[in-house]
Amino acid sequence: MKHETFVLAPDSFKESMTAKEVCIAMEKGLRKVFPEANYLHVPMADGGEGTVQSLVDATHGELFHLSVTGPLGTPVDAVYGVMGDGDVGVIEMASASGIHHVNEQTRNPLVTTTYGTGELIRACLDKGIEKIILGIGGSATNDGGTGMAEALGARFFDGDDKPLPRGGGALGQLKRIDVSGMDPRLAQVEIIVACDVTNPLCGEQGASHVFGPQKGATPEMVAKLDANLSHYADVVLHQLGKTVGTAPGAGAAGGLGAGLMAFTRCVMQKGIDIVIEYSGLRDKLQGADYCLTGEGRIDSQTRFGKTPYGVAKTAQALQVPVIAVSGCVGDGIESLYQEGIDVIFGMIPRADPLASLLQEGPANMERACENIGRLIRLSQARGASGG
Amino acid sequence: MKHETFVLAPDSFKESMTAKEVCIAMEKGLRKVFPEANYLHVPMADGGEGTVQSLVDATHGELFHLSVTGPLGTPVDAVYGVMGDGDVGVIEMASASGIHHVNEQTRNPLVTTTYGTGELIRACLDKGIEKIILGIGGSATNDGGTGMAEALGARFFDGDDKPLPRGGGALGQLKRIDVSGMDPRLAQVEIIVACDVTNPLCGEQGASHVFGPQKGATPEMVAKLDANLSHYADVVLHQLGKTVGTAPGAGAAGGLGAGLMAFTRCVMQKGIDIVIEYSGLRDKLQGADYCLTGEGRIDSQTRFGKTPYGVAKTAQALQVPVIAVSGCVGDGIESLYQEGIDVIFGMIPRADPLASLLQEGPANMERACENIGRLIRLSQARGASGG
Repeated sequence: MKHETFVLAPDSFKESMTAKEVCIAMEKGLRKVFPEANYLHVPMADGGEGTVQSLVDATHGELFHLSVTGPLGTPVDAVYGVMGDGDVGVIEMASASGIHHVNEQTRNPLVTTTYGTGELIRACLDKGIEKIILGIGGSATNDGGTGMAEALGARFFDGDDKPLPRGGGALGQLKRIDVSGMDPRLAQVEIIVACDVTNPLCGEQGASHVFGPQKGATPEMVAKLDANLSHYADVVLHQLGKTVGTAPGAGAAGGLGAGLMAFTRCVMQKGIDIVIEYSGLRDKLQGADYCLTGEGRIDSQTRFGKTPYGVAKTAQALQVPVIAVSGCVGDGIESLYQEGIDVIFGMIPRADPLASLLQEGPANMERACENIGRLIRLSQARGASGG
Repeated sequence: MKHETFVLAPDSFKESMTAKEVCIAMEKGLRKVFPEANYLHVPMADGGEGTVQSLVDATHGELFHLSVTGPLGTPVDAVYGVMGDGDVGVIEMASASGIHHVNEQTRNPLVTTTYGTGELIRACLDKGIEKIILGIGGSATNDGGTGMAEALGARFFDGDDKPLPRGGGALGQLKRIDVSGMDPRLAQVEIIVACDVTNPLCGEQGASHVFGPQKGATPEMVAKLDANLSHYADVVLHQLGKTVGTAPGAGAAGGLGAGLMAFTRCVMQKGIDIVIEYSGLRDKLQGADYCLTGEGRIDSQTRFGKTPYGVAKTAQALQVPVIAVSGCVGDGIESLYQEGIDVIFGMIPRADPLASLLQEGPANMERACENIGRLIRLSQARGASGG
């Protein structure tokens, strides 16, 4: 029997392990049983938190730190990545403009801005990047992506031809958009937006109504922000000739989706599909014997675009069995068996406090995978003996 | 390939499931994957709590309830079993004389008595039982088994030829033992004592010093109880001609071990070995493909006579692989792999509160075993394909 090939393609385990660290723990456990097997690490993500880290790790790329304008206008430390080939940049908008940069007291979607996200895009342009993968979950903003555009050279004026203040609260005064100063390199770059929502910019299903409250918007603020984004879409349509008000995904990240459509060459794609493509997962699965995946939590929501689901669909097409390991196995996992996740194991050994479980993630993953390996080995032996 | 045979031989999961209930949950999970497999249920125990229930369940025997004299002299409800063949009785001394019948306020090893345990033995004699398996863990007593003997007809007198009060505190006054009224049927019955300790009756390693404090004995009480048991051993030696003071196991259960040696035909054996023998485990493992075992907790102590260890040793000799599933996987399990436990999985899906984990034991065991089955099936298939 030839040596087994294991593809290790987990997401990160939030607050416990990066996806790469999960891969390492998985291999440590399996290697005790299969010391001569091949182990292919494919740290994964679904376009949300951890996407930059995983795509950099998966391609042996590089991380860069940068001080940018935070959602409240003050500087924040942000990070972006360049993949191993040097041509593709990876950004999480939350790193610059995320909800974790504000708190209960300071959150205010009337003034929060995506300016810092634009600065990260500009940093990629400075590096000669040809393609940018942009994850847009977790935003603190509701500015229609105007801050992002401003950082790249767009200017927004009111009826008196004075520059608008930043933030979605001012967009009701928008009269004129000047794109003459936009960074010319932007036209050469394709932005692949990792976006799992299809919300339009405005209306009941729009950015302000659906996502505004979780960013701190009161009902009055929601109404104002929604009206402002609607006016903004009108101006964009009339002055730039782009229809962004009703496009699916335009409402993502407080309308950053619309801003990207208005000011950049972008395509929207499901986050997990982007990561599968750029991590090279499919190639690595060719001819593999087993694929291990996992995420901090696996439950009935996993089938809606989470990493283990995407990995399983890819592996299933190549007839590679998939074993998922999770820190928290929720209800409704049975439906996942038909989706290509063949086996699902929890990994926590006992009901310890959460803080210690998070800290012991690597040890628990290693132990679980060692025993998965042990069960594989003895079951293979029985299969080989013909029962 | 012929259909698989699974032997299911778990211990009970304390406060969650009887061993039989564990078997049922294991089968439910596995049967989803292997609907035509053979499932042999062998509910196990190690001589401690759950031994009566498991041996009754394993042999399709019967449970009997009886009101007996509790450790403090007041009546308690106790239970004993008769195994399926009708010839073997099973008793846990704790059911009549256990520590759970006293509390912080009432515990007092000077007065607690094993009388109720003797009543359970008598009930077995009344049923025409030929052999009694007696588990002696968890006692509240320190009376050298004198209460047990009294319930079966022995009488204990002081220097004034007055009957001694019950309890180890009075044994210092013991002058004469009258065995003329002992139940004659006792001589025909073999008592197989499930005993995992080798402590002698007296001294630093004796019943009073080692186990007295956990029954509520102060240092002064320990000294008195130890001296009393030493005197008791002298009287037994001189009047009954039996050496019980130094015999290994005489110190078990507050000296009940010594009392059994003095007044009955008994043999001492490790609890797990007794259960393995009387449950018919070895026969059922012949030709099985997989053995599943488990216990509420598995850790470095498991190798000292716990059920999964005993099951594994038995299965290992018959070359049947063993998979253990536990609610709590402790440290140091690596050493168990060499002892025949091939695979160890935890079964709890997440860090829920203990109360709900205990309640959800059957569902968690079923889900874990379903996934164990799923991994076995796909690994067998790879083994059969030759890799």
